[in-house]
Amino acid sequence: MRDIFHEELEGITAQQLKMTALVKDAIEQATLALLTADLQTAEKVIQDDVAVDSIQHDLDERSISLMARQQPVASDLRTLVSSLRISADLERMGDLAHHIAKLARMRFPNKAVPEDTVAIVTDMGKAASRIVEKLAVVLEFRDINRALEIEKDDDEMDKLQRTLIGSLLAPTWKHSVESAVDMAFLSRYYERFSDHVVSIAQRVYYTETGEFAKKADS
Amino acid sequence: MRDIFHEELEGITAQQLKMTALVKDAIEQATLALLTADLQTAEKVIQDDVAVDSIQHDLDERSISLMARQQPVASDLRTLVSSLRISADLERMGDLAHHIAKLARMRFPNKAVPEDTVAIVTDMGKAASRIVEKLAVVLEFRDINRALEIEKDDDEMDKLQRTLIGSLLAPTWKHSVESAVDMAFLSRYYERFSDHVVSIAQRVYYTETGEFAKKADS
Repeated sequence: MRDIFHEELEGITAQQLKMTALVKDAIEQATLALLTADLQTAEKVIQDDVAVDSIQHDLDERSISLMARQQPVASDLRTLVSSLRISADLERMGDLAHHIAKLARMRFPNKAVPEDTVAIVTDMGKAASRIVEKLAVVLEFRDINRALEIEKDDDEMDKLQRTLIGSLLAPTWKHSVESAVDMAFLSRYYERFSDHVVSIAQRVYYTETGEFAKKADS
Repeated sequence: MRDIFHEELEGITAQQLKMTALVKDAIEQATLALLTADLQTAEKVIQDDVAVDSIQHDLDERSISLMARQQPVASDLRTLVSSLRISADLERMGDLAHHIAKLARMRFPNKAVPEDTVAIVTDMGKAASRIVEKLAVVLEFRDINRALEIEKDDDEMDKLQRTLIGSLLAPTWKHSVESAVDMAFLSRYYERFSDHVVSIAQRVYYTETGEFAKKADS
C-alpha cells in the first residue's frame, strides 16, 4: 500500500514541477511582452493561464482522491495537505503573470514601461525568473538549503520594489499619473509572485524538517 | 465515530465564524483609522492581525488531526479540505485589512485619503463590511442563495474600484502622485478582500451542492 502511495506522491510532484515550469515561462514571457509591447506574446500568456488552472484542478483531485483511498497519517498526510497549498500558490503565481501580460495588452501599441524605468523592471523580471527557477530545484529535490536561500532572494525583490516605488514618487518622475499607477501595480505583481515562492519554500522546509524555517542571514 | 466527526466539524465552523468576525472588525476599524487618521485604531488593527493568524494555525491543526483520526471520505473529506482553504482565505483577508491600517499609520498625522476621494473609499469600506457580514451567514447556515448573491456584491466592489481608479487618472486629479499610488493600492486591497469572500462562498456552494456556482443574474 505504502509503495503505491509514494508512487502517486511522485506523480503529484511531477505535476507541481510542470506547473512551476509553466509559471516560469509565463512570467518570463509576460515580462518580455511588457518591455517590448509585444501583443502576440501578451495574448499567449493570457490564454495559456488556463493550462495552469487546469493542472491545479487535476492536482487537487489527485491529492483528495489519494487521501480518500490511502488514508495517510502523520507526515504523509501533511505532505498531501501541503501539496494542496503549493498548487494554490502556483496557480496564483500564474494569475500574477497573467496580470502583467494584461497590462502589456492594455497599453499596446504603447510600451507600458517608461524608458527610464525599463532597467528596474528588467531586474524585477530577472529576479522573478531566478526565484522560480530555484523553486523548481526545491520542489524536485526537497532541497531545504535552497528553500532558505529563497527568503533572501525575496528580500532582493522587495528592495527592487521599494526602488521602483521610490522612483515614481521622486520629483524627477516626469510621466503621467496613469503611468505611475501602472508601475505601482506592476511592482506589486512581481513582489506578490515572489511572496508565493517564499510561501511554497517554507512549506517544503516544514514538511522536510518538521520545523518552521528561520530566515537565513541577510 | 461519525457523530464525533460532525461535532468536531461544528467546532471548526465555530472557529471560522470567529475568524470572520475578527476580519469584519479589522476591515471596519482599518477603514475608520484610514478616514479619520486615527493612529491608535490603526495600531490596534495591525496588532490584532496575529489573533487571526493564530486561529488559522489552530484551525489547520484541528482539520489535519481530524483527517488523521477519523479518516473521512467523500463529502466529509471535501468539507475538511475546503475548510483548510477557507481559513487561508480568511487569513489573507486579515492581511489586507492590516495593509489598509498600515497605510493609515504611514501617512499619520495626515489623512491618507484626499477629501474628494473620501466618499468612494467610504463606499468601498461599507461594501467590504456588507460582503463579509453576508459571508458569516453563508458559513453559519451553509446558505447557498446568499453564496450566489456574494458574486453580485463583488461586482459592486469592482465597480467602485474602477470608479476610484478612474478618478485618479482623470485630468481633475489635483493631488500628488504619491496620493494616486496610495489610492491605487488601497482600491486593490478592498477589491482583493472582496475576491477572497467570493472564493469562500464558491467553496461553500460547491461543498453543499457538488456543483460549481454559476453567477447569479447581474
